[in-house]
Amino acid sequence: MTTSGLPFDDFRTLLAGVEGPDQGAAARVRALYAATGKPKGSLGRLEDIAEWLAEWTGRAPPVINKPLVAIFAGNHGVAANNVISPRAAASTAQVVELTAAGGAAINQFCIASNLGLKVFDLALDLPTADITQDAALDEKSCAATMAFGMEAVADNIDLLCIGDLGVGNTTVAAALFAALFGGSGADWVGSGSGADDPMMARKAGVVDKALALHGSHLKDPLEALRRVGGREFAAIAGAILAARLQKVPVVLDGFASTAAAAVLHALNPHALDHCVLAHLSVENGHKRAAERLGLRPILDLKLHHGEGTGAALAAGIVKAAALSLSGMAAAIR
Amino acid sequence: MTTSGLPFDDFRTLLAGVEGPDQGAAARVRALYAATGKPKGSLGRLEDIAEWLAEWTGRAPPVINKPLVAIFAGNHGVAANNVISPRAAASTAQVVELTAAGGAAINQFCIASNLGLKVFDLALDLPTADITQDAALDEKSCAATMAFGMEAVADNIDLLCIGDLGVGNTTVAAALFAALFGGSGADWVGSGSGADDPMMARKAGVVDKALALHGSHLKDPLEALRRVGGREFAAIAGAILAARLQKVPVVLDGFASTAAAAVLHALNPHALDHCVLAHLSVENGHKRAAERLGLRPILDLKLHHGEGTGAALAAGIVKAAALSLSGMAAAIR
Repeated sequence: MTTSGLPFDDFRTLLAGVEGPDQGAAARVRALYAATGKPKGSLGRLEDIAEWLAEWTGRAPPVINKPLVAIFAGNHGVAANNVISPRAAASTAQVVELTAAGGAAINQFCIASNLGLKVFDLALDLPTADITQDAALDEKSCAATMAFGMEAVADNIDLLCIGDLGVGNTTVAAALFAALFGGSGADWVGSGSGADDPMMARKAGVVDKALALHGSHLKDPLEALRRVGGREFAAIAGAILAARLQKVPVVLDGFASTAAAAVLHALNPHALDHCVLAHLSVENGHKRAAERLGLRPILDLKLHHGEGTGAALAAGIVKAAALSLSGMAAAIR
Repeated sequence: MTTSGLPFDDFRTLLAGVEGPDQGAAARVRALYAATGKPKGSLGRLEDIAEWLAEWTGRAPPVINKPLVAIFAGNHGVAANNVISPRAAASTAQVVELTAAGGAAINQFCIASNLGLKVFDLALDLPTADITQDAALDEKSCAATMAFGMEAVADNIDLLCIGDLGVGNTTVAAALFAALFGGSGADWVGSGSGADDPMMARKAGVVDKALALHGSHLKDPLEALRRVGGREFAAIAGAILAARLQKVPVVLDGFASTAAAAVLHALNPHALDHCVLAHLSVENGHKRAAERLGLRPILDLKLHHGEGTGAALAAGIVKAAALSLSGMAAAIR
């Protein structure tokens, strides 16, 4: 998809030109709710969600027939030293296998809410470079992974729930948030899969070292993505952008997915208008990041499991919002 | 079911003798989660819910095969003067009919989460007495309605989601909360189906008048239920009790259902241990009441729709919690 000199240029162009909401469809949703004769605003957040779905699909009432949970899995060179996560790097691949076998939590949540599921294995045998030593990815690889992520939006899906998998990726997410929003490692690291206080301090130190190494290059959000991000972050950024271009609303999962989304937001403050945040993770800094991005979580269930679990649970609410309007409207017209 | 002299006595006896949780089943749930090898506590509130389901069903992993949403609908004499709700009293019956026709919001949410639905019409043509003039119900009618509510727990259901319908019932719920927890009308009334400030003031005045009329009789929670409550409140109290006796966990909906539950809690502080609160309604005082009852809401979606909508949405999360454990465990054993 590269038509210009530099791999990132196409993404910059696409992002700068994204379309706004369909205000007419949103107005039709409000009119449909009013026509039911129910108390105004009685379905609370669900009415907001139905209106948002209409804005970004152009359909009123909105319809969700083919929702997909897409999980992007990557491995991180920075995790190799084994001091920043209680899980071994090999466990990323193990969870990918467990998901393929139907035995992960996300499989059950997809069953519960009738969601499709695809796991995108992003070169797990080839971890990114250690961000304290080098850029995680070169520009060409990063752009190629973004393009790969864009392909997740296919087969006429009409809701994209985005999750992530990757041992060490909460450290990488913290580095991205620090690069994009400022602050030091200590401001953004959390306990991830269960880091204790000394391990949290090592995580913060790793982030600070990466920030120092990459310095002013991080002012460019896409440079930040390739330097202190990683493959699942690049793919998620690509998927979010592709969803916007194809009028597919997005449900973002937790800390790492939000960090990937933040890259797009830094390039265009309207880049995430077609996204909702599934839940507030217990990860340190997620709430602060969500507020900076203007993303209001649907759920607050103290999850820190990853693999798109929060997005799948929130998708149940999003589907109910769409159904509420179509079913009620049909009965009353 | 009356075996003693006074209609309420059996309920008092049953409530005093309810059993505690199955600690062994809860421990088995914790062991099953540990056996998956996933990060400890990573599914947050869902792990608490799975453990709670095991405690009150004795099954580990818990299984939900036959969840039911039961909506109890009643009419209130106090609503007849038409100054305490923007909806006409006739609309209770209209919503019951809409639900039977499949056109209410609750129908769509039941479809979304595969929940059964029953609406219990509690003598809608015979509103309770105006609580500012008389007791809503005599003891015999109140006890009979509680017994009727107990019959909602039938057909081997394994999760009971309880909702309510009744024009004017947020005023009645406010009166019950004030009777049980203290405070005046202004402390407990909210906007209900959309009352404006003058109407809220009239609601508060109605509650104060009822509190003054019934005075010290309200110290007995069952007397409070029959004097300032109503039919759906009595039936809900019966249903919650029957669920406990039959090891069926309960998901409570909003403000009115919580007020009915509060009656049981006042009689036995462990009476609601088999209940979770579906959501935090926007109704004034619901948060305070929930805290007093030790009920932590699963959702906070600014709903004020009634008809069990919050309970049905939360049931999706409860089902996912049960599924998460059974599916994960099966894959890993």
